[in-house]
Amino acid sequence: MQDRHHETLAQLCADARETALLESIESLLGWDERTYLPPAAGAYRAEQITYLSGWIHRRRTAPQIGEWLDELRESPLAADLHSDTGATIRELDREYRRLVKLPSSFVEELTRATVLGQQCWTEARQKNDFAGFQPFLERIFSLKREQAEMWGYPSEPYDALLDDFEPGAETATVAQTLDGLRSGLAPLVAEIAECNRQAPCDLLTRHYPRAAQQAFGDEAAAAIGFDFSRGRLDITHHPFCSSLGPDDCRITTRYDEQHFSSAFFGTLHEAGHGMYDQGLRTEQFGLPPGTYISLGIHESQSRLWENLVGRSAEFWQHFFPIAQQHFPAALAGERWESFWFAVNAVRPSLIRVEADEATYNLHIIIRFQLERAVLSGELAVADLPQAWNDRYRQYLGIEPPSDVDGVLQDIHWSAGLVGYFPTYSLGNVYAAQFFRQAEKELGDLPDQLKRGDFAPLKQWLNRNIHQRGRCYRAVELVQQVTGQPLSAEPMIEGLRNKLLPLYGLA
Amino acid sequence: MQDRHHETLAQLCADARETALLESIESLLGWDERTYLPPAAGAYRAEQITYLSGWIHRRRTAPQIGEWLDELRESPLAADLHSDTGATIRELDREYRRLVKLPSSFVEELTRATVLGQQCWTEARQKNDFAGFQPFLERIFSLKREQAEMWGYPSEPYDALLDDFEPGAETATVAQTLDGLRSGLAPLVAEIAECNRQAPCDLLTRHYPRAAQQAFGDEAAAAIGFDFSRGRLDITHHPFCSSLGPDDCRITTRYDEQHFSSAFFGTLHEAGHGMYDQGLRTEQFGLPPGTYISLGIHESQSRLWENLVGRSAEFWQHFFPIAQQHFPAALAGERWESFWFAVNAVRPSLIRVEADEATYNLHIIIRFQLERAVLSGELAVADLPQAWNDRYRQYLGIEPPSDVDGVLQDIHWSAGLVGYFPTYSLGNVYAAQFFRQAEKELGDLPDQLKRGDFAPLKQWLNRNIHQRGRCYRAVELVQQVTGQPLSAEPMIEGLRNKLLPLYGLA
Repeated sequence: MQDRHHETLAQLCADARETALLESIESLLGWDERTYLPPAAGAYRAEQITYLSGWIHRRRTAPQIGEWLDELRESPLAADLHSDTGATIRELDREYRRLVKLPSSFVEELTRATVLGQQCWTEARQKNDFAGFQPFLERIFSLKREQAEMWGYPSEPYDALLDDFEPGAETATVAQTLDGLRSGLAPLVAEIAECNRQAPCDLLTRHYPRAAQQAFGDEAAAAIGFDFSRGRLDITHHPFCSSLGPDDCRITTRYDEQHFSSAFFGTLHEAGHGMYDQGLRTEQFGLPPGTYISLGIHESQSRLWENLVGRSAEFWQHFFPIAQQHFPAALAGERWESFWFAVNAVRPSLIRVEADEATYNLHIIIRFQLERAVLSGELAVADLPQAWNDRYRQYLGIEPPSDVDGVLQDIHWSAGLVGYFPTYSLGNVYAAQFFRQAEKELGDLPDQLKRGDFAPLKQWLNRNIHQRGRCYRAVELVQQVTGQPLSAEPMIEGLRNKLLPLYGLA
Repeated sequence: MQDRHHETLAQLCADARETALLESIESLLGWDERTYLPPAAGAYRAEQITYLSGWIHRRRTAPQIGEWLDELRESPLAADLHSDTGATIRELDREYRRLVKLPSSFVEELTRATVLGQQCWTEARQKNDFAGFQPFLERIFSLKREQAEMWGYPSEPYDALLDDFEPGAETATVAQTLDGLRSGLAPLVAEIAECNRQAPCDLLTRHYPRAAQQAFGDEAAAAIGFDFSRGRLDITHHPFCSSLGPDDCRITTRYDEQHFSSAFFGTLHEAGHGMYDQGLRTEQFGLPPGTYISLGIHESQSRLWENLVGRSAEFWQHFFPIAQQHFPAALAGERWESFWFAVNAVRPSLIRVEADEATYNLHIIIRFQLERAVLSGELAVADLPQAWNDRYRQYLGIEPPSDVDGVLQDIHWSAGLVGYFPTYSLGNVYAAQFFRQAEKELGDLPDQLKRGDFAPLKQWLNRNIHQRGRCYRAVELVQQVTGQPLSAEPMIEGLRNKLLPLYGLA
């Protein structure tokens, strides 16, 4: 019996690896589309991707997989949920069930609605026309409600959608964590907004030649541990990280010669994502034990390197002299302390993607609250703009002059991505919890960072997070690694400890 | 009945287009492997390519295709061989029959022998050890003989192999053409070797900064008509051209700061290949009327732009002042006539890929004669090195000091590419015939080139060659376009007219 189960599992895994091989080819098509594709080649590229993704979908929903899983689900091989075998069966089962619950007519309908939705959003944003976008958004939210019903949920429809991005997360827990984050961050942001000291932000808007930015960014990414023998860094419009194989992680950035931060912190951010992918067990590529846990945990790795390392005093004590060599015209005669203050400037702003480390989460919390309310029916889509503006006034002390700078700024909802936003803030929260634990266990982490020795931290992340693959849920991993439940406290404390002295408020 | 045939043809074409879509994805995997793939990612890339090519092979040999073709082969739709419909049926039938004639056990055996052959060749070349390579090469030639028998041939086994690269070409005709080429070129080369005048080659080995080479190469490629909105130019070790879709042609080059010619003429060469692909009818992409005719005709397009245009006096009258702007340090104060002489220097040499326009074909003729003799059994593999050296002495007046500079220099035979070499020279011959005809029809072609107006020539090639796709055989196309049979005479005359005055021998 056991023998038969082992054989079935081997077949299931071989099938999953074959699908992963095709997905990796699809990822190459996507990477190339966003980096090097000639302008006129888009239409045929879309045909290539559509063909391949249709084929992948048929493979992933093949009845044969259901039969294998029916046999394995209750077998002894599935008993230990956190073992490679148990996690493989549990996760492939989860994926299969989610996929087959959606009739193909519904999938097509949702695809159509979100393609139209994105087109309409693009136009609505140009014309500041929320009213024109409203019926499309209503249709999308209505379909997302249907989707949640098809998938099922423990307490509220939002659970089902959130679970798609952050497996195992429950809305109520996330809401509680984000509430804690807001009550910690809103006063901090307000305190800073009222104080007299200003960060020397002009330091960051001097002329930073592109070639030097590229050289400095490559050097920093390699220094923190992104392995260029198993990956690349290329240029794109909207930076992303994509793995095309177990030893082929592609990260991207963009350069603006008048702004230092965008490319540099973008590079650290994507390198953090990339180092997660590179830290997964290569022999498990394409199977759950070789797969990232959730979007939130993935984001924790990018935020940890971008913010907790890349915006720390120690990091700039090490890297500022190197930056001065790369950018002599911009930085000669400056002090690392000023530069460090500049990259930590806090300023309430209207646009999420331009927000600083402290205010960023307030942008997310607003989106989370609003999409949850719309999904549950408490808030009408028509009332979104007003609710958006009210919350910005309340949480950030500013109000968008128009919907373009308000409710129309993000593509997510138009693309059907409801339940996605909180993973950004969860990433920040996880990152701070992990970082505090790493500090405890590594002892002299600040000294290591100051020396530019990033290997101990990277190896700690490899061991505690990356190599576990998807054998744990995100909250289980947090508990397992830190001995604590999910909590916003380390993040708030970390930010207070860094920002209050910088602003002379300690 | 006609209706049924039309329906069958539509199914056959839809199937071929779907296979072409997959092949285009395979081409992206190959392009990326040769341009941007991280060093450690090779193993998984090989898995991706193997998986996809296995699947493509199964599609291309599906019995269903044979059934469709059985119906269409004798139908009225196939009657006009040069119509889109007739050519589609004829060419898909040809491809299908060639594929299914080879048992999969034979294909595997040949693949194994050539993989081993290439590995052994790499080593043999490092150690100058032809004896070590000999048994592998004997095995490969023996398998190629078997392959020729399976495919069948009109007169001699070599016909079958040649036909794989140059459909419809017959060995005897090719031999005759190449003989004519040799009897015209060998005396010309000897005459130049004995004369006193020397080309000012030092002009080409000054310092040519890479960024300036790139800018100048891009400018020239765009000027002659390579469409960068439908293609790209990237960097690689062994330059190639690959189309990833109807509007996505990728060409490549490499830069050497101490040599002007390699990157620049490489760029013109690949741009010529690329402009052929870009000139094919996009709506026929993936079908024979939207496919290049043969390797020889493809090469004719690259050689035409590289040599007949790119090494002409008129071209440098236009481009030399532009080159001076790009390379002020290397070229200030120089005259276009000297530069033009330098890029046309003739010097017998041992290595094919470094050969000049006149001696290049002698290298090819030697390879053609030797591989034909080995295949027919007239020459033993063991006797290849001596036969090689004898012919180099006879045709080029020089003899390789070792097999590394002789019989071991090319990868082709070790990769099973027997019958491939002559397509390089056929390309030169076709190019000269086409160019002479274009001169006749366009009237003021030299003036156009001198003005940097390359559009009339490009459009002439589009109309007469590219847009015909694979509706003609190469020799038919030559006859159709020029009104003449295949002939080496235009090439010899063109070279004499250019080189004799340059060397003061006119």
